[in-house]
Amino acid sequence: MNHQEEEEGEKVKLFGYWASPYVFRVIWALRIKGVEYDYIEEDLENKSDQLLEYNPVHKKVPVLVYQGKPIAESEVILEFIDEAWKDRGDCILPEDPYERAMARFWARFLKDKLSPPIWKWFTMQGQEQEDAHQAVVEQLLVLEKELDGKRFFAGEKIGFVDLSFGPLSYVIPMYEEITGGKMITEEKFPSLSAWIGNFLSSPVVKDHLPPLDKLRLRLQAIRDAHF
Amino acid sequence: MNHQEEEEGEKVKLFGYWASPYVFRVIWALRIKGVEYDYIEEDLENKSDQLLEYNPVHKKVPVLVYQGKPIAESEVILEFIDEAWKDRGDCILPEDPYERAMARFWARFLKDKLSPPIWKWFTMQGQEQEDAHQAVVEQLLVLEKELDGKRFFAGEKIGFVDLSFGPLSYVIPMYEEITGGKMITEEKFPSLSAWIGNFLSSPVVKDHLPPLDKLRLRLQAIRDAHF
Repeated sequence: MNHQEEEEGEKVKLFGYWASPYVFRVIWALRIKGVEYDYIEEDLENKSDQLLEYNPVHKKVPVLVYQGKPIAESEVILEFIDEAWKDRGDCILPEDPYERAMARFWARFLKDKLSPPIWKWFTMQGQEQEDAHQAVVEQLLVLEKELDGKRFFAGEKIGFVDLSFGPLSYVIPMYEEITGGKMITEEKFPSLSAWIGNFLSSPVVKDHLPPLDKLRLRLQAIRDAHF
Repeated sequence: MNHQEEEEGEKVKLFGYWASPYVFRVIWALRIKGVEYDYIEEDLENKSDQLLEYNPVHKKVPVLVYQGKPIAESEVILEFIDEAWKDRGDCILPEDPYERAMARFWARFLKDKLSPPIWKWFTMQGQEQEDAHQAVVEQLLVLEKELDGKRFFAGEKIGFVDLSFGPLSYVIPMYEEITGGKMITEEKFPSLSAWIGNFLSSPVVKDHLPPLDKLRLRLQAIRDAHF
């Protein structure tokens, strides 16, 4: 990849949506690498022709456009950013093959094991909600053990797993507030509680969060719509 | 990673199951890299303590054990194999960051967009089956366009996307036979039809397939159990 060419050519474009956790992962990754980009906000009720052309398979944000070529799927974009700007900023994935495998494993854990019960916990009530709450606690305990007092999942700096889980740092507290059910207590989850603070106060993240009041209203409306 | 050490140390172990498409992806990848391994067949009705210890989160095969350290999730294992034995055999992922992103995108496409309707098509009947059939055709047409006459998805040699889709080369013809519904015709899918032949006859694959007669009986039993 030729940086000269990149700087002379078209700037990177990011098609996003203000409330999308997947988009914010990409924004944080671009900030870790110090990559400038043009941000295009999409109206998800009325998607632009450009978005549909760039991501005909999923028709979703985020899409990153690099030298006119589109990349979709947030985790795929994170790895692309790490590889395309390998020598800039901090590494997003570690160098060692085994550690890289573990980072990918935990990112998938979020998608396959943790996100589905979190969504159920937030959108259900009664026994179903209690069962989902229990399922989330079980999976979070796995994560608590994995984090085990570290500042971030990869150690001292934010990496792939932190970026993947990042949106939970502000979404879980909102879910707790809206449902009235506490999930992450300091007693039960000391490492995860500390991680939330570490993540939200880190330089690449703290001034680049979605508008939280607006997000809370949106989430409240989503929960209300389920009942 | 020190090959000397590896050759003197414990051989790689693979925990598998004879019918698992996820396990066969890993076997083919190990063969591309020329990595020797000890294979341990698991009884999925009565999983070994070792498997549960190595993969406590998912409790599933495949698990690859490298120098005593376990790796789970077949796509994570494929990338690990490519990176840990970088200088041996052919590359599994291409070198260019954009092409790597595309390979990962298509592997995810299989998991998220193609596998769910394929399973519905195989396990349902009537209108539901017809709808699933139509959904599979739509997604396969996307793939047909992506393959576009190439021998393999990555070009002349088997790569990450071929390994991910590989099991479809023998499973879809079995599903067609069992359900009596044709899916991949040469007229509609010339590239995919040719790819099936190319994949099944390639040196790393052809003598390393599950026992197909036994697999057909198992799939027939799975379909029968749904009605």
